[in-house]
Amino acid sequence: MSYVIDKYNARADQVNSLLCVGLDSDYARLPKRFKSAPHPQFAFNKWIIEQTHEYVSAYKPNSAFYEARGAAGLTDLQMTMDYLQMHYGDILTICDAKRADIGSTNAGYVAAIFDELGFDAVTLNPYLGRAALEPFLVRADKGCILICRTSNPGAGEFQDLITGDGGEPLWTVVARRVSAEWNTRGNCMLVAGATYPGELRRIRAIAGEMTLLAPGVGAQGGDVAQTVQAGLNSRDKGLIINSSRGVIFADDPAGAARALRDEINRHR
Amino acid sequence: MSYVIDKYNARADQVNSLLCVGLDSDYARLPKRFKSAPHPQFAFNKWIIEQTHEYVSAYKPNSAFYEARGAAGLTDLQMTMDYLQMHYGDILTICDAKRADIGSTNAGYVAAIFDELGFDAVTLNPYLGRAALEPFLVRADKGCILICRTSNPGAGEFQDLITGDGGEPLWTVVARRVSAEWNTRGNCMLVAGATYPGELRRIRAIAGEMTLLAPGVGAQGGDVAQTVQAGLNSRDKGLIINSSRGVIFADDPAGAARALRDEINRHR
Repeated sequence: MSYVIDKYNARADQVNSLLCVGLDSDYARLPKRFKSAPHPQFAFNKWIIEQTHEYVSAYKPNSAFYEARGAAGLTDLQMTMDYLQMHYGDILTICDAKRADIGSTNAGYVAAIFDELGFDAVTLNPYLGRAALEPFLVRADKGCILICRTSNPGAGEFQDLITGDGGEPLWTVVARRVSAEWNTRGNCMLVAGATYPGELRRIRAIAGEMTLLAPGVGAQGGDVAQTVQAGLNSRDKGLIINSSRGVIFADDPAGAARALRDEINRHR
Repeated sequence: MSYVIDKYNARADQVNSLLCVGLDSDYARLPKRFKSAPHPQFAFNKWIIEQTHEYVSAYKPNSAFYEARGAAGLTDLQMTMDYLQMHYGDILTICDAKRADIGSTNAGYVAAIFDELGFDAVTLNPYLGRAALEPFLVRADKGCILICRTSNPGAGEFQDLITGDGGEPLWTVVARRVSAEWNTRGNCMLVAGATYPGELRRIRAIAGEMTLLAPGVGAQGGDVAQTVQAGLNSRDKGLIINSSRGVIFADDPAGAARALRDEINRHR
């Protein structure tokens, strides 16, 4: 098992939490007091991290919210990562970027996300296939989280197509290939939206002990009890449950994070 | 037909060219004289644009090569776009980013790519489905170029899976859905790798008059004659043929661009 998955498990044990907080720090939605800061997204993230870190085993900024502000947003993301590495180096960091390009081009994303920004893991899109993603997959020191059955409405348009490969929907083929073939370095994970607990359960069955990232509890409507019951592996682990807006834009982010961590633990 | 596709066609007529040059300006590969410039990727791009613009109907920077340099790379990309808009506003600009996230999150990428950077069009990944991509698709003033059959080795791992939807490979389902259902605003296009001319021909048959982006001639090995013959629509148009490394890292980029434009035209 990879360094990155060991890191997550160690933190999850230490703070008794499977909670990941999504730092989807949309500038338009930031509280007024942060908007006028020189680095508004960093200032907000620092506050959220201070409010929530003791309940959290992973943070997951989505790149889109930073790219929306151009170079300034990227600087705020880098400052957020530097802050996490300096103060909370044992918390897993996931760049939610859903990247995928052809082989050699991915080297640019690898450099940006793993080496410049310093993330532990990245979300990836499987559509171009394993060979294209090799520059990510060869990084045994990092985590590759393949989107499989995503949490959004309409996710099934292609993901649910029944394939000739065993008569299964496409997302099960992705789950099978990633867990059985792509994971030779033990650094792969899968995204299974919490909004589809039936699919999450089948992905767990296919993926064995692999760690799964389940976004979509909270604002997107995923049920915590069903997510926990469907997603845990045989060691009552292997699950990263993400909430973004439901925590960071709560009136009391600390309370929201603690409550969600506790709700997750009640169902373990 | 959308403003963006009209823009491409008008330029293609004006300079008699279906050539797109990929500004994949990998810092490590830049000629020495650009590496020490304050904005090395912009300085290189400016030179390439001056060398090649008269033979070119589109430029396509791949975001990965700029993101690799963090905020500095993003600034160079912005400067490149500002330069193109100021001096060559009639040349189509495509951000090759292969983005896709869930609905609301895509708004960040829309803001970054269409509004901040000012690109005419963006490449998108279909795996999350149409509903997820609506923030891109609703932009009738911009172009959405869906990857369908990509040019990379191993592209077929999922793209070639035979689906229950008519017993066709996944990439044909993508081509059919995008051309028959997603394109209500006339702003959709498809990526069909020049390295697979048989697939390009079938995508042309499915997509009617839709404009196709065919990357992969040159360094990736796609054959120009086959690409042109397979990819043109009934009006001998509807095709954007991209070469990146084969032009920008040639000893004589102007000569390489001219030769490729002429080779394309010999087969029209």
